[in-house]
Amino acid sequence: MLAALSCLPAAHADDKDVIEYREHIMNTLNEQAGALGEILSAAVPDDNVISHLDAIALTASTALRAFTPKVPGGEAKAEVWSNWADFSKRMNEFARMTGDMARTAHEQGKEAGLANVVEALSCKGCHDTYRKEKPQK
Amino acid sequence: MLAALSCLPAAHADDKDVIEYREHIMNTLNEQAGALGEILSAAVPDDNVISHLDAIALTASTALRAFTPKVPGGEAKAEVWSNWADFSKRMNEFARMTGDMARTAHEQGKEAGLANVVEALSCKGCHDTYRKEKPQK
Repeated sequence: MLAALSCLPAAHADDKDVIEYREHIMNTLNEQAGALGEILSAAVPDDNVISHLDAIALTASTALRAFTPKVPGGEAKAEVWSNWADFSKRMNEFARMTGDMARTAHEQGKEAGLANVVEALSCKGCHDTYRKEKPQK
Repeated sequence: MLAALSCLPAAHADDKDVIEYREHIMNTLNEQAGALGEILSAAVPDDNVISHLDAIALTASTALRAFTPKVPGGEAKAEVWSNWADFSKRMNEFARMTGDMARTAHEQGKEAGLANVVEALSCKGCHDTYRKEKPQK
Protein backbone atom coordinates (compact mmCIF):
# COMPACT_ATOMS: atom_id res chain seq x y z
CA MET A 1 0.00 0.00 0.00
CA LEU A 2 2.79 2.41 0.87
CA ALA A 3 4.44 1.76 -2.47
CA ALA A 4 1.42 3.19 -4.26
CA LEU A 5 1.57 6.51 -2.50
CA SER A 6 4.04 8.03 -4.89
CA CYS A 7 1.31 7.89 -7.52
CA LEU A 8 -0.96 10.12 -5.46
CA PRO A 9 1.09 13.03 -4.27
CA ALA A 10 -1.99 15.19 -3.66
CA ALA A 11 -3.30 13.02 -0.85
CA HIS A 12 -1.73 12.40 2.51
CA ALA A 13 -1.08 8.78 3.36
CA ASP A 14 -3.88 8.76 5.88
CA ASP A 15 -6.31 10.57 3.60
CA LYS A 16 -5.79 7.99 0.90
CA ASP A 17 -6.37 5.19 3.38
CA VAL A 18 -9.53 6.81 4.70
CA ILE A 19 -10.89 7.14 1.17
CA GLU A 20 -9.97 3.59 0.23
CA TYR A 21 -11.54 2.23 3.37
CA ARG A 22 -14.91 3.85 2.83
CA GLU A 23 -14.80 2.77 -0.81
CA HIS A 24 -14.38 -0.83 0.32
CA ILE A 25 -17.52 -0.41 2.41
CA MET A 26 -19.57 1.21 -0.32
CA ASN A 27 -18.34 -1.26 -2.94
CA THR A 28 -19.41 -4.10 -0.68
CA LEU A 29 -22.90 -2.63 -0.56
CA ASN A 30 -22.87 -2.31 -4.33
CA GLU A 31 -21.79 -5.92 -4.84
CA GLN A 32 -24.31 -7.29 -2.36
CA ALA A 33 -27.11 -5.18 -3.81
CA GLY A 34 -26.07 -6.49 -7.23
CA ALA A 35 -26.25 -10.08 -6.02
CA LEU A 36 -29.67 -9.44 -4.53
CA GLY A 37 -30.77 -7.78 -7.75
CA GLU A 38 -29.90 -10.94 -9.68
CA ILE A 39 -32.11 -12.89 -7.33
CA LEU A 40 -34.96 -10.38 -7.48
CA SER A 41 -34.95 -10.55 -11.27
CA ALA A 42 -35.19 -14.35 -10.92
CA ALA A 43 -31.91 -14.74 -12.80
CA VAL A 44 -30.39 -16.94 -10.09
CA PRO A 45 -31.91 -19.05 -7.29
CA ASP A 46 -32.86 -17.28 -4.09
CA ASP A 47 -31.04 -19.58 -1.64
CA ASN A 48 -28.81 -16.81 -0.33
CA VAL A 49 -31.37 -14.06 0.14
CA ILE A 50 -31.00 -13.96 3.91
CA SER A 51 -27.19 -13.97 3.70
CA HIS A 52 -27.31 -11.02 1.34
CA LEU A 53 -29.73 -9.13 3.57
CA ASP A 54 -27.48 -9.84 6.55
CA ALA A 55 -24.36 -8.68 4.69
CA ILE A 56 -26.08 -5.50 3.53
CA ALA A 57 -27.41 -4.71 7.01
CA LEU A 58 -24.04 -5.42 8.59
CA THR A 59 -22.17 -3.27 6.10
CA ALA A 60 -24.75 -0.48 6.23
CA SER A 61 -24.24 -0.35 9.98
CA THR A 62 -20.55 0.43 9.44
CA ALA A 63 -20.94 2.91 6.61
CA LEU A 64 -21.62 6.17 8.43
CA ARG A 65 -18.58 5.77 10.66
CA ALA A 66 -16.40 5.34 7.57
CA PHE A 67 -17.38 8.86 6.52
CA THR A 68 -16.80 10.55 9.87
CA PRO A 69 -13.27 11.69 9.02
CA LYS A 70 -13.70 14.87 6.97
CA VAL A 71 -11.67 13.75 4.01
CA PRO A 72 -13.15 14.76 0.66
CA GLY A 73 -11.96 12.69 -2.27
CA GLY A 74 -12.81 9.60 -4.23
CA GLU A 75 -16.48 9.73 -5.15
CA ALA A 76 -17.65 11.62 -2.08
CA LYS A 77 -18.84 15.16 -2.70
CA ALA A 78 -18.00 17.90 -0.21
CA GLU A 79 -21.74 17.98 0.60
CA VAL A 80 -21.26 14.83 2.67
CA TRP A 81 -19.64 16.99 5.31
CA SER A 82 -21.30 20.35 4.65
CA ASN A 83 -24.73 18.65 4.90
CA TRP A 84 -23.64 16.21 7.59
CA ALA A 85 -26.95 16.36 9.48
CA ASP A 86 -28.86 15.22 6.40
CA PHE A 87 -26.20 12.77 5.25
CA SER A 88 -25.94 11.08 8.61
CA LYS A 89 -29.70 10.99 9.02
CA ARG A 90 -30.03 9.23 5.67
CA MET A 91 -27.22 6.81 6.43
CA ASN A 92 -28.75 5.96 9.79
CA GLU A 93 -32.12 5.45 8.12
CA PHE A 94 -30.45 3.17 5.57
CA ALA A 95 -28.86 1.14 8.36
CA ARG A 96 -32.17 0.96 10.22
CA MET A 97 -34.18 -0.15 7.19
CA THR A 98 -31.70 -2.76 6.04
CA GLY A 99 -31.42 -4.02 9.61
CA ASP A 100 -35.20 -4.33 9.74
CA MET A 101 -35.22 -6.25 6.45
CA ALA A 102 -32.65 -8.73 7.72
CA ARG A 103 -34.46 -9.19 11.02
CA THR A 104 -37.81 -9.66 9.31
CA ALA A 105 -36.29 -12.21 6.94
CA HIS A 106 -34.93 -14.22 9.86
CA GLU A 107 -38.22 -14.06 11.74
CA GLN A 108 -40.76 -14.34 8.93
CA GLY A 109 -38.89 -15.63 5.91
CA LYS A 110 -37.43 -14.30 2.68
CA GLU A 111 -40.63 -12.95 1.17
CA ALA A 112 -41.44 -10.84 4.20
CA GLY A 113 -37.82 -9.69 4.44
CA LEU A 114 -37.91 -8.42 0.89
CA ALA A 115 -41.19 -6.54 1.25
CA ASN A 116 -39.46 -3.16 1.59
CA VAL A 117 -36.38 -3.88 -0.50
CA VAL A 118 -37.01 -1.20 -3.11
CA GLU A 119 -37.47 1.49 -0.50
CA ALA A 120 -34.57 0.29 1.66
CA LEU A 121 -32.13 0.05 -1.24
CA SER A 122 -33.03 3.32 -2.93
CA CYS A 123 -29.34 4.08 -3.23
CA LYS A 124 -29.84 6.61 -5.99
CA GLY A 125 -31.54 9.13 -3.69
CA CYS A 126 -28.34 9.68 -1.74
CA HIS A 127 -25.93 9.07 -4.59
CA ASP A 128 -27.49 11.86 -6.66
CA THR A 129 -26.76 14.29 -3.86
CA TYR A 130 -23.58 12.99 -2.28
CA ARG A 131 -21.67 10.99 -4.87
CA LYS A 132 -19.85 12.26 -7.91
CA GLU A 133 -18.75 10.30 -10.93
CA LYS A 134 -15.68 8.20 -10.31
CA PRO A 135 -12.63 10.20 -11.36
CA GLN A 136 -10.70 8.91 -14.34
CA LYS A 137 -7.56 7.01 -13.34
CA MET B 1 -30.02 -6.39 -17.21
CA LEU B 2 -31.79 -7.87 -20.21
CA ALA B 3 -30.93 -4.84 -22.30
CA ALA B 4 -27.23 -5.59 -21.86
CA LEU B 5 -27.44 -9.10 -23.25
CA SER B 6 -27.02 -8.06 -26.84
CA CYS B 7 -23.43 -7.12 -25.97
CA LEU B 8 -22.59 -10.67 -24.99
CA PRO B 9 -23.89 -12.97 -27.70
CA ALA B 10 -21.54 -15.79 -26.70
CA ALA B 11 -23.21 -16.34 -23.34
CA HIS B 12 -26.73 -17.50 -22.68
CA ALA B 13 -28.81 -15.17 -20.56
CA ASP B 14 -28.65 -17.53 -17.64
CA ASP B 15 -24.92 -18.14 -18.03
CA LYS B 16 -24.21 -14.45 -17.89
CA ASP B 17 -26.33 -14.10 -14.78
CA VAL B 18 -24.61 -17.03 -13.10
CA ILE B 19 -21.22 -15.49 -13.79
CA GLU B 20 -22.27 -12.04 -12.61
CA TYR B 21 -23.76 -13.46 -9.45
CA ARG B 22 -20.63 -15.31 -8.38
CA GLU B 23 -18.56 -12.24 -9.25
CA HIS B 24 -20.69 -10.19 -6.85
CA ILE B 25 -19.88 -12.73 -4.15
CA MET B 26 -16.14 -12.84 -4.85
CA ASN B 27 -15.95 -9.05 -5.22
CA THR B 28 -17.61 -8.71 -1.83
CA LEU B 29 -14.90 -10.89 -0.32
CA ASN B 30 -12.28 -8.78 -2.05
CA GLU B 31 -13.73 -5.51 -0.75
CA GLN B 32 -14.12 -6.79 2.80
CA ALA B 33 -10.62 -8.28 2.81
CA GLY B 34 -9.40 -4.92 1.53
CA ALA B 35 -11.17 -3.09 4.35
CA LEU B 36 -9.70 -5.51 6.88
CA GLY B 37 -6.27 -5.05 5.31
CA GLU B 38 -6.48 -1.30 5.89
CA ILE B 39 -7.19 -2.00 9.54
CA LEU B 40 -4.41 -4.58 9.87
CA SER B 41 -1.91 -2.13 8.46
CA ALA B 42 -3.10 0.37 11.08
CA ALA B 43 -4.16 2.77 8.35
CA VAL B 44 -7.66 3.19 9.76
CA PRO B 45 -9.18 2.54 13.21
CA ASP B 46 -10.19 -0.99 14.05
CA ASP B 47 -13.75 -0.28 15.20
CA ASN B 48 -15.31 -2.45 12.51
CA VAL B 49 -13.10 -5.53 12.74
CA ILE B 50 -15.89 -7.79 13.93
CA SER B 51 -18.30 -6.54 11.28
CA HIS B 52 -15.73 -7.26 8.59
CA LEU B 53 -15.05 -10.73 9.96
CA ASP B 54 -18.80 -11.38 10.06
CA ALA B 55 -19.30 -10.15 6.50
CA ILE B 56 -16.40 -12.26 5.23
CA ALA B 57 -17.63 -15.38 7.04
CA LEU B 58 -21.17 -14.84 5.83
CA THR B 59 -20.10 -14.31 2.24
CA ALA B 60 -17.62 -17.18 2.32
CA SER B 61 -20.46 -19.46 3.38
CA THR B 62 -22.34 -18.58 0.19
CA ALA B 63 -19.41 -18.75 -2.20
CA LEU B 64 -19.23 -22.45 -3.02
CA ARG B 65 -22.88 -22.63 -3.93
CA ALA B 66 -22.41 -19.76 -6.39
CA PHE B 67 -19.97 -21.97 -8.31
CA THR B 68 -22.13 -25.11 -8.41
CA PRO B 69 -23.58 -24.34 -11.85
CA LYS B 70 -20.95 -25.55 -14.32
CA VAL B 71 -20.64 -22.29 -16.19
CA PRO B 72 -17.07 -21.41 -17.17
CA GLY B 73 -16.52 -17.73 -17.87
CA GLY B 74 -15.54 -14.53 -16.17
CA GLU B 75 -12.42 -15.13 -14.13
CA ALA B 76 -13.13 -18.77 -13.29
CA LYS B 77 -10.85 -21.32 -14.90
CA ALA B 78 -12.29 -24.61 -16.16
CA GLU B 79 -10.30 -26.27 -13.36
CA VAL B 80 -12.97 -25.11 -10.91
CA TRP B 81 -15.21 -27.83 -12.28
CA SER B 82 -12.63 -30.37 -13.49
CA ASN B 83 -11.00 -30.32 -10.01
CA TRP B 84 -14.29 -29.87 -8.18
CA ALA B 85 -13.32 -32.11 -5.27
CA ASP B 86 -10.28 -29.96 -4.51
CA PHE B 87 -12.01 -26.66 -5.26
CA SER B 88 -14.99 -27.43 -3.04
CA LYS B 89 -12.75 -28.73 -0.27
CA ARG B 90 -10.79 -25.49 -0.32
CA MET B 91 -13.92 -23.38 -0.43
CA ASN B 92 -15.42 -25.27 2.49
CA GLU B 93 -12.19 -24.86 4.41
CA PHE B 94 -12.26 -21.14 3.66
CA ALA B 95 -15.82 -20.90 4.96
CA ARG B 96 -14.92 -22.91 8.04
CA MET B 97 -11.85 -20.85 8.88
CA THR B 98 -13.52 -17.49 8.35
CA GLY B 99 -16.49 -18.69 10.38
CA ASP B 100 -14.13 -19.67 13.18
CA MET B 101 -12.47 -16.26 13.05
CA ALA B 102 -15.79 -14.46 13.35
CA ARG B 103 -16.97 -16.71 16.18
CA THR B 104 -13.71 -16.31 18.06
CA ALA B 105 -13.87 -12.54 17.67
CA HIS B 106 -17.35 -12.47 19.15
CA GLU B 107 -16.37 -14.72 22.03
CA GLN B 108 -12.83 -13.55 22.80
CA GLY B 109 -12.44 -10.18 21.12
CA LYS B 110 -10.83 -8.72 18.04
CA GLU B 111 -7.26 -9.72 18.75
CA ALA B 112 -8.13 -13.38 19.21
CA GLY B 113 -10.38 -13.29 16.14
CA LEU B 114 -7.54 -12.04 14.00
CA ALA B 115 -5.00 -14.61 15.20
CA ASN B 116 -5.38 -16.77 12.08
CA VAL B 117 -6.25 -14.04 9.61
CA VAL B 118 -3.25 -14.56 7.34
CA GLU B 119 -3.92 -18.26 7.02
CA ALA B 120 -7.70 -17.87 6.67
CA LEU B 121 -7.44 -15.18 4.01
CA SER B 122 -4.71 -16.77 1.93
CA CYS B 123 -6.77 -16.04 -1.18
CA LYS B 124 -3.77 -16.34 -3.48
CA GLY B 125 -3.46 -20.09 -2.99
CA CYS B 126 -6.78 -20.74 -4.69
CA HIS B 127 -6.63 -17.82 -7.09
CA ASP B 128 -3.35 -19.04 -8.59
CA THR B 129 -5.02 -22.32 -9.47
CA TYR B 130 -8.62 -21.40 -10.18
CA ARG B 131 -8.74 -17.77 -11.29
CA LYS B 132 -7.53 -16.28 -14.51
CA GLU B 133 -6.84 -12.66 -15.26
CA LYS B 134 -9.93 -10.59 -15.78
CA PRO B 135 -10.70 -10.49 -19.50
CA GLN B 136 -10.41 -7.12 -21.20
CA LYS B 137 -13.78 -5.47 -21.73
